[in-house]
Amino acid sequence: MGHNKSSFLKQPVEHIDITSFDARPIIDSMSKMSFVSRETANASRIYNNMLKDKECTIFLTLAGSTSAAGCMKLYSDLVKNNMVDAIVATGASIIDMDFFEALGFKHYQGSQFQDDGVLRDNYIDRIYDTYIDEDELQNCDRIIGEIADTLEPRPYTSREFIKELGRYLKTNAKKKNSLIELAYDHNVPIFCPAFTDSSAGFGLVMHQERNPDKHMTIDSIKEFRELTEIKIQSNASGLLMIGGGVPKNFIQDTVICAELLNKKVEMHKYAVQITVADSRDGACSSSTLKEASSWGKVDTTEEQMVFAEATSVLPLIASDAYHRGYWKDRTVKNFSKIFD
Amino acid sequence: MGHNKSSFLKQPVEHIDITSFDARPIIDSMSKMSFVSRETANASRIYNNMLKDKECTIFLTLAGSTSAAGCMKLYSDLVKNNMVDAIVATGASIIDMDFFEALGFKHYQGSQFQDDGVLRDNYIDRIYDTYIDEDELQNCDRIIGEIADTLEPRPYTSREFIKELGRYLKTNAKKKNSLIELAYDHNVPIFCPAFTDSSAGFGLVMHQERNPDKHMTIDSIKEFRELTEIKIQSNASGLLMIGGGVPKNFIQDTVICAELLNKKVEMHKYAVQITVADSRDGACSSSTLKEASSWGKVDTTEEQMVFAEATSVLPLIASDAYHRGYWKDRTVKNFSKIFD
Amino acid sequence: MGHNKSSFLKQPVEHIDITSFDARPIIDSMSKMSFVSRETANASRIYNNMLKDKECTIFLTLAGSTSAAGCMKLYSDLVKNNMVDAIVATGASIIDMDFFEALGFKHYQGSQFQDDGVLRDNYIDRIYDTYIDEDELQNCDRIIGEIADTLEPRPYTSREFIKELGRYLKTNAKKKNSLIELAYDHNVPIFCPAFTDSSAGFGLVMHQERNPDKHMTIDSIKEFRELTEIKIQSNASGLLMIGGGVPKNFIQDTVICAELLNKKVEMHKYAVQITVADSRDGACSSSTLKEASSWGKVDTTEEQMVFAEATSVLPLIASDAYHRGYWKDRTVKNFSKIFD
Amino acid sequence: MGHNKSSFLKQPVEHIDITSFDARPIIDSMSKMSFVSRETANASRIYNNMLKDKECTIFLTLAGSTSAAGCMKLYSDLVKNNMVDAIVATGASIIDMDFFEALGFKHYQGSQFQDDGVLRDNYIDRIYDTYIDEDELQNCDRIIGEIADTLEPRPYTSREFIKELGRYLKTNAKKKNSLIELAYDHNVPIFCPAFTDSSAGFGLVMHQERNPDKHMTIDSIKEFRELTEIKIQSNASGLLMIGGGVPKNFIQDTVICAELLNKKVEMHKYAVQITVADSRDGACSSSTLKEASSWGKVDTTEEQMVFAEATSVLPLIASDAYHRGYWKDRTVKNFSKIFD
Repeated sequence: MGHNKSSFLKQPVEHIDITSFDARPIIDSMSKMSFVSRETANASRIYNNMLKDKECTIFLTLAGSTSAAGCMKLYSDLVKNNMVDAIVATGASIIDMDFFEALGFKHYQGSQFQDDGVLRDNYIDRIYDTYIDEDELQNCDRIIGEIADTLEPRPYTSREFIKELGRYLKTNAKKKNSLIELAYDHNVPIFCPAFTDSSAGFGLVMHQERNPDKHMTIDSIKEFRELTEIKIQSNASGLLMIGGGVPKNFIQDTVICAELLNKKVEMHKYAVQITVADSRDGACSSSTLKEASSWGKVDTTEEQMVFAEATSVLPLIASDAYHRGYWKDRTVKNFSKIFD
Repeated sequence: MGHNKSSFLKQPVEHIDITSFDARPIIDSMSKMSFVSRETANASRIYNNMLKDKECTIFLTLAGSTSAAGCMKLYSDLVKNNMVDAIVATGASIIDMDFFEALGFKHYQGSQFQDDGVLRDNYIDRIYDTYIDEDELQNCDRIIGEIADTLEPRPYTSREFIKELGRYLKTNAKKKNSLIELAYDHNVPIFCPAFTDSSAGFGLVMHQERNPDKHMTIDSIKEFRELTEIKIQSNASGLLMIGGGVPKNFIQDTVICAELLNKKVEMHKYAVQITVADSRDGACSSSTLKEASSWGKVDTTEEQMVFAEATSVLPLIASDAYHRGYWKDRTVKNFSKIFD
Repeated sequence: MGHNKSSFLKQPVEHIDITSFDARPIIDSMSKMSFVSRETANASRIYNNMLKDKECTIFLTLAGSTSAAGCMKLYSDLVKNNMVDAIVATGASIIDMDFFEALGFKHYQGSQFQDDGVLRDNYIDRIYDTYIDEDELQNCDRIIGEIADTLEPRPYTSREFIKELGRYLKTNAKKKNSLIELAYDHNVPIFCPAFTDSSAGFGLVMHQERNPDKHMTIDSIKEFRELTEIKIQSNASGLLMIGGGVPKNFIQDTVICAELLNKKVEMHKYAVQITVADSRDGACSSSTLKEASSWGKVDTTEEQMVFAEATSVLPLIASDAYHRGYWKDRTVKNFSKIFD
Repeated sequence: MGHNKSSFLKQPVEHIDITSFDARPIIDSMSKMSFVSRETANASRIYNNMLKDKECTIFLTLAGSTSAAGCMKLYSDLVKNNMVDAIVATGASIIDMDFFEALGFKHYQGSQFQDDGVLRDNYIDRIYDTYIDEDELQNCDRIIGEIADTLEPRPYTSREFIKELGRYLKTNAKKKNSLIELAYDHNVPIFCPAFTDSSAGFGLVMHQERNPDKHMTIDSIKEFRELTEIKIQSNASGLLMIGGGVPKNFIQDTVICAELLNKKVEMHKYAVQITVADSRDGACSSSTLKEASSWGKVDTTEEQMVFAEATSVLPLIASDAYHRGYWKDRTVKNFSKIFD
């Protein structure tokens, strides 16, 4: 009934600010309860232990669409306040969502009950209850391709290429303080092991198509070696995992990779995962952290699965950690520099 | 390794106090996000609308074990502050959990990974990650039976019997301010449509066994009529549903029941349900509120399913409603009195 | 677009016939696999062990709407072929679905994507992807009330009342071989511990309304004692549980009830449950059978949770058991007779 | 208690043979039911429609661990009988599972309740209820690296490299008829968009480490272009998706990629996905196929989500399609040849 693009794209998603409220009293109360409230509090405790542990490198992994759903500033704040040291993410989280908003585009509040045919007619993409302007997304694809056109034609790791995006945003960002830009500033490397499976893939295919002979490629083998190098150079490590997917498996595999390279490393000492995936389907996304310990990837002393859709509990966990302030005493790892 | 009952039952569950923190800024932020955070904020909005609507009777339904898991005081606070007018619950929530703690017994933090054979050897019952002393629970069963022995031998509705428990607790409670006692004080009726399926069942079977000729029974048909009467006497109604189960179906059915009695009532105008049940199994617990509207039970204008285990989001919703304070202007419904 | 009641109610659900195909080779193959296929095969093995065990009483529990979804004849066939000895079910399964179809009414294939407002306008009720004619359902309610009007006004257990429905169907059924009628013929008692929460509730409320002074009631305490008596008279017992809900808890509780009555009984020796409920919400429906063993209700030697919506795997399990034929050597328990 | 590696690795997983039983009568019955049984039957119908449609290219996508869990021969049979034309899979499905077994190694039936510390001590990896010998898996990693050492040092797509593995297996396979080998024989290309996230990653990192100056890389951008080329050369296309993950997103994205390359292609005309992922977490794995249609990726006329762990229903769907035999009239697409 008279719906058009602008009537669908009225209410932008606004990203939660974990510094604007103090979740510590809630987390303290939840630690005395049971079920998911206690899981949430225990995840907070473990994350705070990572931050307290001077030796510990903290890896943030992102899968799913929480960046589009209002957690984008939350992740930026973790980088800005030295609360994570490296990031492993899906290409969509980094390019389609974070880079996309840095270009000035937005996500919009929508409805999962909307008829998708009507959305299609209006060139609107839907992620559950959130809308995206497909024209804007294709713009994002194109800009990726154009940036690639300007780079030396050789194999890059996704980390290298994302660093170039950070450099680009220093002068071209419409929205400052994107995750990519802050990670560039703070020398926090970002890895996307399935980089092509995103807006980056579209842009880079167009780049290769335009430059059939001399073009850049993504060498995801080398980036696995790079990520493993960070693990090797860390005395201890902790995982803060939002969703599962390739990022979860990829960071866990660095322990095995180091072992195959004859480097002596410890299992990841701390691990938290927030997910609603059901372990009974045998997939990695849903596999318990205890299962990961059978593979020698994750230690079981300090691990917690939180059974929740992340937007509902992550703001509490992150706000708690922000306000407890253990990050103030952490040294900056500057892991991006080891690859220069 | 040396585990015994007291080493298992060390850390009692402590119930969250929704007045001790103010969740309003979190809920406000979540209303601008997507996914479950927005569902949570929207549920808050709808619950506040119920409280604002002078005509609206608010039914709280309880299924699952959130009372054991740290939400017991939360439910009491809703009654104490005139934030609910009637309760429909599983017998377990009311008897095995609330009445049980009123007798001075406790729930304990445990682990879902504990070997159940060892628990069995120690006479400890497990609810996911929470422990109960089976001896104490059998004590609770017996007290129910003894109270029944003192009552006039005739059919009771669960509401009537629970009111008697409230009267008993006025002089015998070891822990004050249980849900049952506060509901007794505030004339909030409590219905347990599957009452026998609880500690009450054990106690009442023993009562009937001891008194083969003259004993009380539970007339659950009459209590359906009673609950329907509350619906009939309400101009509007709202449902705050924790989990699904029989309570969810039972309160929804009052609309149909009134219709069959040739009374003109509206569908439930507001409805919120917090659950992780998956709608694809075709069971009532998981059925969407939109599905309920096909049955003419629930209106679809103000309804929200929140996909979360309740202990993680209900404290936010209840704290938000407490601090917004719309309950201060509500008149007291005193529904218990209409059955006197 | 021109939808009306008859265009919605075109395609009746037809109930699967487990004798018409032989699932044994599939189950045999699945026993050599992993994940849910192996769970399914293991559930088959355990159910066959129940059937082979001469001492074993087999309880079938039903929650959810599988009877409406095409498993109605399957359950009837289990009764007809002496493959279950007693049934504990939701009122909806027995009255709204089985009795309803025995009266000549039907369930219809629909869609979970249909707008519920349009269904409401057409007086059609929806269960996920299945439709019911609300007029027919109200007819069913009324007939329940009329049957109640003919009975002696005293407390009945749901078992007693359902037996009366069986007697009624012997002369009045439009569709023969309903579960209720076959259970009547084969002396298989059916218990509905939350009986009021169904079409029976509506009918019986109308009955009480019409007969304010002299009317029947449902004594669910006595029926818990009856069900416990069956457990006491059984040397061993096995549970075949479709979904969870009140029926699951109720049958498990008979072990504790017997203990409180100072009767020596064993835990349920065999247990199978098919459900997609997630254990992490702490509710009984989803609680593992290992958790039940901490309560002393279920032995852990022969138990299997099958993570599946039942209509997809139960036909395989039931067909396998039918064709293996261990039921041919079972004696008939005739449990209905112990209450005469 | 005396557990050692060989006592854990006693019972190999045996892969189901869809030709050994005929699921057609079961699927026919299920088509008349509701809930997941009808979803399963509808998925069968749509898959058969893909096979009947002469114009249709069929893409099989694999995520999760169903190959380890007993579906490995099922996938091989689909290739052998011209029932799929191209495959998009996780690296783990293709390398850690299929190539691994082709080398003569096996997966073993285990238990999800086994203490993972004991497994770790025995160098056994666990996937839910399935065990793997970690020594054998590291052997597999090494062989991948050795094969890479023999290849010309240049960028490869995963498709090209997997074709080399097929060539290797022609002379070196211990177990014949692996998916990789049959796909090699039948010119069915296999794509792994997150190839590094698997045993291949370990092997290729070792290869690059040994050959710092001249080594092969994986160009995943080029392989996205290749997969898109198959879509461009197809008049119609259908997706048979087991789980979600990167493969699901990657194949869907080919429609957009073609559009960005200014090629006119249709949305995927048919789509089936089997998964237990919950759409409410906003991740791609769980997103409905209707949601995909808002992105212009999948048409909604012939789409079906099946809510099941795949090992329980896929054998029925595949056996049904095998026995209906529409594949007998399909022409062979030989898509591998377009890249020669």
